[in-house]
Amino acid sequence: MSVRFPTALLTLIRELGRLPGIGPKSAQRLAFYLFNRPEEEVRALAAALVEAKTGLERCPLCFNVMSSGSDCCAVCADTRRDRALLCVVEQPADLLAIERSGEYQGLYHVLHGSLSPMNGIGPEQLTIAALQQRLAGVREVVLATSTTVEGEATAHYLARQLGSSGVAVSRIAYGLPVGGDLEYADEVTLGRAISNRRPV
Amino acid sequence: MSVRFPTALLTLIRELGRLPGIGPKSAQRLAFYLFNRPEEEVRALAAALVEAKTGLERCPLCFNVMSSGSDCCAVCADTRRDRALLCVVEQPADLLAIERSGEYQGLYHVLHGSLSPMNGIGPEQLTIAALQQRLAGVREVVLATSTTVEGEATAHYLARQLGSSGVAVSRIAYGLPVGGDLEYADEVTLGRAISNRRPV
Repeated sequence: MSVRFPTALLTLIRELGRLPGIGPKSAQRLAFYLFNRPEEEVRALAAALVEAKTGLERCPLCFNVMSSGSDCCAVCADTRRDRALLCVVEQPADLLAIERSGEYQGLYHVLHGSLSPMNGIGPEQLTIAALQQRLAGVREVVLATSTTVEGEATAHYLARQLGSSGVAVSRIAYGLPVGGDLEYADEVTLGRAISNRRPV
Repeated sequence: MSVRFPTALLTLIRELGRLPGIGPKSAQRLAFYLFNRPEEEVRALAAALVEAKTGLERCPLCFNVMSSGSDCCAVCADTRRDRALLCVVEQPADLLAIERSGEYQGLYHVLHGSLSPMNGIGPEQLTIAALQQRLAGVREVVLATSTTVEGEATAHYLARQLGSSGVAVSRIAYGLPVGGDLEYADEVTLGRAISNRRPV
């Protein structure tokens, strides 16, 4: 007789294994961890999952994450912001990172991903059509996608698409991270930092 | 004004971040991934969590995981097994691994962990007291805890505790993994493999 785990455990392992970055071994480890936790704790996680799915929506203007039932997200609702400046980011977390820098006072546009033909993500899977609908009254679009291959490709694609609209398009600066040791910078970053040098 | 994520999102990130091996960054990435998945899929994960908690119990005999409402697990229920032989493992997954080897026909005892004073896990946190209650009619206890520091300490502790009971206590063999290249074996394993050599 071959011994198997009970169905409820196999189901949980399979569902956990669907999450990105969680392989079969991690899924099994997590399932046993949860099996050994108090029931309230597991129910709290299950409730948080459902609540995050039913209690959150994308902002109809910028596609940032917001509480369901709001008219728009907190950034779009803030009347003190420069509404003629749009910063395009891949994820809501990137928006938050830029907010923490305190250097940006415009609005955002969240793409919810980057172009990745290998993974079947083309312009239609992102919020690019909605971005093109938002350009009336916009002075400048700042492309703040990641400096990964996909992020660069997305920025390149958007620059071309937006070029004919008459709106200024800019890309966040490449260079050395602040506090970074020159010796440890990769040569591409260092090359960009030198060619983009600024008078002091 | 400082911009924050909506509460439902922060709650999910916090709950996911409690899981072992999932740091704040992974928790945030998982939360956004789930936010962008279809509602059925998130509900399926939430249901699997609750079902695994309410639909599973520990076997009252060996503490292996079993479906709620069963008298005992499939291994303990199998009358063809040698009930005088007990194999002590840390986790139900270890039991399954030994079953897959096809080399063992006795019963098991699942500790649900290993001794780890640093993490507050002493004998009372494991199923050691129940193991000592199971020794009537048992001929041999095989200690199949991991060969990690904690697993070794647990085996050592159990060997001492069980020594006075008159039951034979054995430890799974150390040696080279089958198919392993001798050149790549660590020196401790190689030393054990040589000192435990067997006549052919």
